[in-house]
Amino acid sequence: MKQGTDLFSPQIESLRAEIDRALSKIDLPSHPEYLYTPIRYTLSGGGKRLRAILVHLVGDAFGADREDMSNAGLAVELLHNFTLVHDDIMDQDNIRHGKDTIHEKWDQSTAILSGDGIYVVSQLLISKIKTKTLPAIHAFNKAALIVCEGQAYDKAFENNNDISLSDYFLMIEKKTAWLIGLCAEMSGIISDQSEETINKLRLFGLNLGRAFQIQDDILEVYGDIETVGKSLGSDLISGKQTILTVLAREDNQEEWSSFWENIKKMEIQAAILHLRDYLNRKNIIEKAYNYVEEFMSKARNELEVIPSSHRETLKQFTNIILTRVK
Amino acid sequence: MKQGTDLFSPQIESLRAEIDRALSKIDLPSHPEYLYTPIRYTLSGGGKRLRAILVHLVGDAFGADREDMSNAGLAVELLHNFTLVHDDIMDQDNIRHGKDTIHEKWDQSTAILSGDGIYVVSQLLISKIKTKTLPAIHAFNKAALIVCEGQAYDKAFENNNDISLSDYFLMIEKKTAWLIGLCAEMSGIISDQSEETINKLRLFGLNLGRAFQIQDDILEVYGDIETVGKSLGSDLISGKQTILTVLAREDNQEEWSSFWENIKKMEIQAAILHLRDYLNRKNIIEKAYNYVEEFMSKARNELEVIPSSHRETLKQFTNIILTRVK
Repeated sequence: MKQGTDLFSPQIESLRAEIDRALSKIDLPSHPEYLYTPIRYTLSGGGKRLRAILVHLVGDAFGADREDMSNAGLAVELLHNFTLVHDDIMDQDNIRHGKDTIHEKWDQSTAILSGDGIYVVSQLLISKIKTKTLPAIHAFNKAALIVCEGQAYDKAFENNNDISLSDYFLMIEKKTAWLIGLCAEMSGIISDQSEETINKLRLFGLNLGRAFQIQDDILEVYGDIETVGKSLGSDLISGKQTILTVLAREDNQEEWSSFWENIKKMEIQAAILHLRDYLNRKNIIEKAYNYVEEFMSKARNELEVIPSSHRETLKQFTNIILTRVK
Repeated sequence: MKQGTDLFSPQIESLRAEIDRALSKIDLPSHPEYLYTPIRYTLSGGGKRLRAILVHLVGDAFGADREDMSNAGLAVELLHNFTLVHDDIMDQDNIRHGKDTIHEKWDQSTAILSGDGIYVVSQLLISKIKTKTLPAIHAFNKAALIVCEGQAYDKAFENNNDISLSDYFLMIEKKTAWLIGLCAEMSGIISDQSEETINKLRLFGLNLGRAFQIQDDILEVYGDIETVGKSLGSDLISGKQTILTVLAREDNQEEWSSFWENIKKMEIQAAILHLRDYLNRKNIIEKAYNYVEEFMSKARNELEVIPSSHRETLKQFTNIILTRVK
């Protein structure tokens, strides 16, 4: 899977390749195939591996043990993939990283069970960590519960016109940002840093994660028009809350509602163009980008906690978030 | 939920009540309701709590710490409930412990997500154990993966006429028996017993679990006819492998196949009576009970590892398995 790859510096690209190799080498039995074939399919399924890369970049900065970093990075990547497999069933998304999702390629039972299996394997990996094992396990499971809460808000907020900007921020903090916060936090834990440093690392990741999700919401409308056409359709139907829909509603609820009802009836490409036009005219896209900038700036402020020799690499990494196109 | 309750001695019944109280007191947030309301519903949903009771009975015998036993018992009970919530979606079962299953009462997304949440909470509980924390966590996660494998075999074996008795035994070992083995093993771990003792405890639980599942398969046909009517219908359609179908096929594949195709077309009560008659005539029910006895006897042999003062209570507990009627 090539997406985003061209944005990576050689150092980050070589990390990504290392993580992909390690994912393919996770020691899994071959039987029952019903469980392990779809798990292997998911883990070989591309993805930018941003979360595991972040674990390594922060861990390297603090001199964490290489094996601990590898296990932590893989565990976080698996936790993320477990949530994707289950979320894709819930949201009826049939394509992920350019490949059929598990429930589409096999069936729903296979997807539920292999998602469960991926999460169990992530637990086995995180408990292999040798430094600060119990704090690492605790942070990992706390994050897992928060991600479930985030997905619950995401589902509960569907088609609800009362969702405010602060509801939205709560949802993305839990659904997306906390796990990215965990990546930075985890590397602080396994390199035995002070509580203050660990908290700052988490805050760095949290703000990076908020910016990441808002950017993702923007790309859902402003990305490559073919890709947007495929995913926006299902979002229109399910009435997902995104930064753009929430800001548009806060700008003018009545006008937005009637506009929204109207574009739902349009052919998808026309709907996208009308939608972009509306969001541009009302300066909503500008407001959304301001939030990306705001959270990126907050994230960068926390980078003072990173030893200066490694700060530049992490800044570069945060820029990937801002410049990615899908 | 009263089922099975009358079989318990006062000591075991009071344990069960204590476990129910502890389950209702697990510290869960109230929001998002989308996640936590169905989790609470599941945990208050009855069930015999056999697994947590077993943790306490074995733990008491070895003087394990009360809080550790409580956390281990709750964690195992939650792991079990997580698998039930997801299995019920996969098997399209709409009733569990006399109540609507989550996907029936809410919807499928709610059931997938709250199942995930229950498993995460079980992880948070198991990592609270103070004695031999890492071995306890490791045994717990290993068991979780084995249960997933068992469910995978269960799904993969559906409607497959090539499944042998040894395939069936592999499936029930993983699907049911290992988790019951874990309950006994876990109490050996948290009371810091030798590896030899822990292995014998696991073997005790494994054999008890095998007997339990075979007895369960028998009750699916020979239990209360109203209850059988409800669940057998879906099993007939999905072509689940049970001790009775596997033994019947091994007895006379051709005769059984044509009989089976025939009763599928019948009204359910008539199908049950014909099925019982066939299994009685062919001594299949007798063979199945012999396996229950064989595994119970193997389980009881391992009880020598339990201090004699507590052996009687555990024997009594194993008898519950044999005498339960649903």
